[in-house]
Amino acid sequence: MKSDLSNFQGKHVLITGGLGFIGSTLAIHLLKLDAKVTLIDSLEPNYGGHLSNIEGYQDDLTVVVDDVRNTDTIQKLIRNQDFLFNLAGQTSHLDSMQDPETDLAINCTAQLSILETCRHHNPSIRTVFASTRQIYGTPQYLPVDEKHPLRPVDVNGINKLAGEQYHLLYNNVHGLRSSVLRLTNTIGPRMRIKDARQTFLGIWMRRLLEGQPFEVWGGQQLRDLTDVDDCVQALLQSALCQDTYGKAFNLGGSETISLKSLAELLIDIHGKGTFNLCPFPQERAAIDIGDYYASDELFRATTGWQPQIQLRQTLERTLDFYSDHLKHYVEV
Amino acid sequence: MKSDLSNFQGKHVLITGGLGFIGSTLAIHLLKLDAKVTLIDSLEPNYGGHLSNIEGYQDDLTVVVDDVRNTDTIQKLIRNQDFLFNLAGQTSHLDSMQDPETDLAINCTAQLSILETCRHHNPSIRTVFASTRQIYGTPQYLPVDEKHPLRPVDVNGINKLAGEQYHLLYNNVHGLRSSVLRLTNTIGPRMRIKDARQTFLGIWMRRLLEGQPFEVWGGQQLRDLTDVDDCVQALLQSALCQDTYGKAFNLGGSETISLKSLAELLIDIHGKGTFNLCPFPQERAAIDIGDYYASDELFRATTGWQPQIQLRQTLERTLDFYSDHLKHYVEV
Repeated sequence: MKSDLSNFQGKHVLITGGLGFIGSTLAIHLLKLDAKVTLIDSLEPNYGGHLSNIEGYQDDLTVVVDDVRNTDTIQKLIRNQDFLFNLAGQTSHLDSMQDPETDLAINCTAQLSILETCRHHNPSIRTVFASTRQIYGTPQYLPVDEKHPLRPVDVNGINKLAGEQYHLLYNNVHGLRSSVLRLTNTIGPRMRIKDARQTFLGIWMRRLLEGQPFEVWGGQQLRDLTDVDDCVQALLQSALCQDTYGKAFNLGGSETISLKSLAELLIDIHGKGTFNLCPFPQERAAIDIGDYYASDELFRATTGWQPQIQLRQTLERTLDFYSDHLKHYVEV
Repeated sequence: MKSDLSNFQGKHVLITGGLGFIGSTLAIHLLKLDAKVTLIDSLEPNYGGHLSNIEGYQDDLTVVVDDVRNTDTIQKLIRNQDFLFNLAGQTSHLDSMQDPETDLAINCTAQLSILETCRHHNPSIRTVFASTRQIYGTPQYLPVDEKHPLRPVDVNGINKLAGEQYHLLYNNVHGLRSSVLRLTNTIGPRMRIKDARQTFLGIWMRRLLEGQPFEVWGGQQLRDLTDVDDCVQALLQSALCQDTYGKAFNLGGSETISLKSLAELLIDIHGKGTFNLCPFPQERAAIDIGDYYASDELFRATTGWQPQIQLRQTLERTLDFYSDHLKHYVEV
């Protein structure tokens, strides 16, 4: 059964990576629930953080522009929080292969430091960690459930796996209350569209709106996509439902689609546009995982959550958003 | 079929953690095979490194006392090596829970730095990484084979898992030739006996030789134990056999035994001594994994290796060694 979101009213909530795509959307939802929201974000240009993401809400929340690797800041922020949504991370698979040490510092070292701070200074905090489907590597069967072997195929996947395991361990051994959501492609307004660092769909939309053809690599691979509002609902439910503590859950989407069909759907919605089917670039092919879609039955059964937004509707509202906001999101 | 160990003749071999128990035993074997051996070891007092371990061989090899976290040193050492046996690590489960950040720095950050150095400065090097059974966590079935889920129950297990995944990834994506051996309790002359940081058996032997009763926690848990000479043979075979590259293998022992029976066997060999059965201390119970023994069929089938030394013989020769060398290994 779904938890009552009015439980967030008056609660202190910290969101790491809070100026990013998912973090900012979560923050705005929490403000509407009358929570007291603090964001920390490095605003590192290659990541997803962006002040435009909270336009109109700046005065209603606290923004700390700093890096989660800065332990002094983290220690100050974590005391007295009721909830921590731990979304900060290096998310680019390709960047993780070119600069593995930075990926490690953000996705492992900083995570351990955040958990140590919780353990020593705020052990009653409730934590939700955003993990990734990347930890499974190339699927051995579909849909991928939580029992699937963990065989990450890039440094990012290895480090995110360690990050989620720390969260579960601190729940099981040190009594923190932590749960983990393994996200698939999350899409919607505020997603990074400047380049392909977060998801291929961002750069597709940018090219489409700029009147350029976009590149579809491969095309046959199956994917599932979660609307960011559905993702936010999952994060909120996960924080409130005590049956999620100490567990990791997949999050999927409303339907499964091939990249080529997704490209065609996007053009159909936009009413014009073209794409080119291309082979995978070599450095991407080495870490590609083929088809992927998740079973999120366990999370649905545990929390009562289910996706509310159909794929077509997600694409429509995202294209609408960027028709108005493209310039902001491309230039910065 | 077993590889011909004369292939090491004249080869340049680097061993990280080379003054430790397994590292030094490996080094001495390699000297006998006419390899050119370099060791790096931090000689950190809480770890296993010890200059006595290479007594009589100091002039035949190069010893660098430095930390694998020192990237400058690692870069200088790795160039021109033919083989890297990567054994340096923080190995204490309990220490990893009390100081997780140090465990991370040694078992993840330094490992990534070593692999980056190989990738950029010596991509033709052959690497063997010493991992641990701890990555499996509490066994879901016995014997544990390589398909068993990876659910580490302490920070050390999480970080060692990341460490081995980096090695496999650099094999699969960057073309390094790396293999991984997941070790169980390894015992023999030169093992750490000062305390229980490496294996419970060390402190048992120390107490026994000092004429004190030793503590057996629990007693019913099943374990397998590998003689260090068998372990060294496995490391050498793994480096030479190309069918091991990109794979992780369990290493087991000649037999499985309960802790209580092991304690009794030890006293039987020594001819005197007593032990007390005690409940697990609380902080240990939280990260104990219960029964464990490995299936190492895959490694045997792949390389032709099999353990040569029976458990009783291992215990006899280890007790003999420490009857002569106890003082050295307890005082430092």
